[in-house]
Amino acid sequence: MQVSERKVAEVGAEATPVRRLRADQARRIADVLRHQIHAGAFDDVLPSEQELVAEYDASRNTVRDALALLKDEGLIDRVPKVGTRVARRKYDHGLDALLGLQETLKGHGTVRNEVRAAMHITAPPAVARKLGLNPGERVVYIERLRYLADLPLSLDLTYLAPDIGTEVLGHDLETNDIFVLIEQISGGPLGSADLALEAVTADAHTAATLEAPEGSALLMLERLTRLDDGRPVDLEYIRMRGDRITMRGSLNRSTSEWKVI
Amino acid sequence: MQVSERKVAEVGAEATPVRRLRADQARRIADVLRHQIHAGAFDDVLPSEQELVAEYDASRNTVRDALALLKDEGLIDRVPKVGTRVARRKYDHGLDALLGLQETLKGHGTVRNEVRAAMHITAPPAVARKLGLNPGERVVYIERLRYLADLPLSLDLTYLAPDIGTEVLGHDLETNDIFVLIEQISGGPLGSADLALEAVTADAHTAATLEAPEGSALLMLERLTRLDDGRPVDLEYIRMRGDRITMRGSLNRSTSEWKVI
Repeated sequence: MQVSERKVAEVGAEATPVRRLRADQARRIADVLRHQIHAGAFDDVLPSEQELVAEYDASRNTVRDALALLKDEGLIDRVPKVGTRVARRKYDHGLDALLGLQETLKGHGTVRNEVRAAMHITAPPAVARKLGLNPGERVVYIERLRYLADLPLSLDLTYLAPDIGTEVLGHDLETNDIFVLIEQISGGPLGSADLALEAVTADAHTAATLEAPEGSALLMLERLTRLDDGRPVDLEYIRMRGDRITMRGSLNRSTSEWKVI
Repeated sequence: MQVSERKVAEVGAEATPVRRLRADQARRIADVLRHQIHAGAFDDVLPSEQELVAEYDASRNTVRDALALLKDEGLIDRVPKVGTRVARRKYDHGLDALLGLQETLKGHGTVRNEVRAAMHITAPPAVARKLGLNPGERVVYIERLRYLADLPLSLDLTYLAPDIGTEVLGHDLETNDIFVLIEQISGGPLGSADLALEAVTADAHTAATLEAPEGSALLMLERLTRLDDGRPVDLEYIRMRGDRITMRGSLNRSTSEWKVI
């Protein structure tokens, strides 16, 4: 990557293009390092600045800028005398399997839900439409703050069809995934789900609830899930901490088919 | 939803829990409105505050808070005498089909790429490993800022295997999707891809490049794409503006299979 820096220097660099290039290079390096951090390539401590300078054929300042980007994302800490440490683990949520959080994080620890609301409400018209209900029908609304051990991961707002929802309310919502409860109640597997994924910034109240900095990036998942017979029963709005969850999947170009990786 | 507000009032509400409940209610309303905005339910102007108060059985202050959340996300504008207007369109990117941006946005307009870099570089070791190359091998690096008409949508950093990449460099990168070029060059369809999706905040330089506010939320896609024979040839780091792209798909619980919706 040094090539382009040299090239600019040769043609008589102004301050601006050099800064632009350094920021571009820092981003490039940060992306590859981010991937390695997620993949667990470093265990706990990153290579030294000198090593990264050699590995990426970049200047020390560029490497420092790259590390600063990752520090701002909360991925690393810079510790005097120790070096650069991985600050926090991110957890993978399978994009290609329709799994609850407890199911998908099996092996990482126990998911605990703080139930913030669990009640019947009159469905807002748009919710009623999505769930195939008549205007003014009651639905079950459940709001949960979901923890892995003591780390808040996501804030889930769930609207359930009244028949299934009323039964769900009779179960333990602190430890169970709602998907699993719906399958127990309906006596069959869930069918399909429509998903929409967005990145949004955390407003002050959501940030405080998720114990994240205000304005931090959230992965927002809207999911409408149907029973095997096609009836929509579960509409969810899930805000995941961007620094704690990565969604992963794989797909084929020819068949548009996802496979579990 | 008014039920819970009343309940708190009855048991002798302190200031804090009432504020908490109003913020929770505002979030709930904002989520449903956000969905309707994306779905094009409102055309250009949202219902009036009075109508939303009736529709969501909420107080006017709560409705105002919900609209403020959507305004902060850049989704709506509040215009004196007109009311609440949809500010900006978001575009859907199919999660379940392996498509280039130009392919996926067909019908919305023309994608134009500003090519910021297109050159051979020495692969960073982690990139070489992902592409199945030996340490120190050269790869082709392409950096593109991608526009739909004059709206910046994403900043794409692409590492290509040297044989394919060298041929890609000979083509017009301003209007073509790289996926399409790879298929032309390799003479066959692409195979599978591994995807990781994250939400990150935009650093100052990336924000400026994407003409987005600093700290705004970006949807970050890392994608490793293979030819039909399984050889990895294309490693991409794609930063999409959170306010302009939603990724959508659908999936089945039983088969873990995605379908185009």
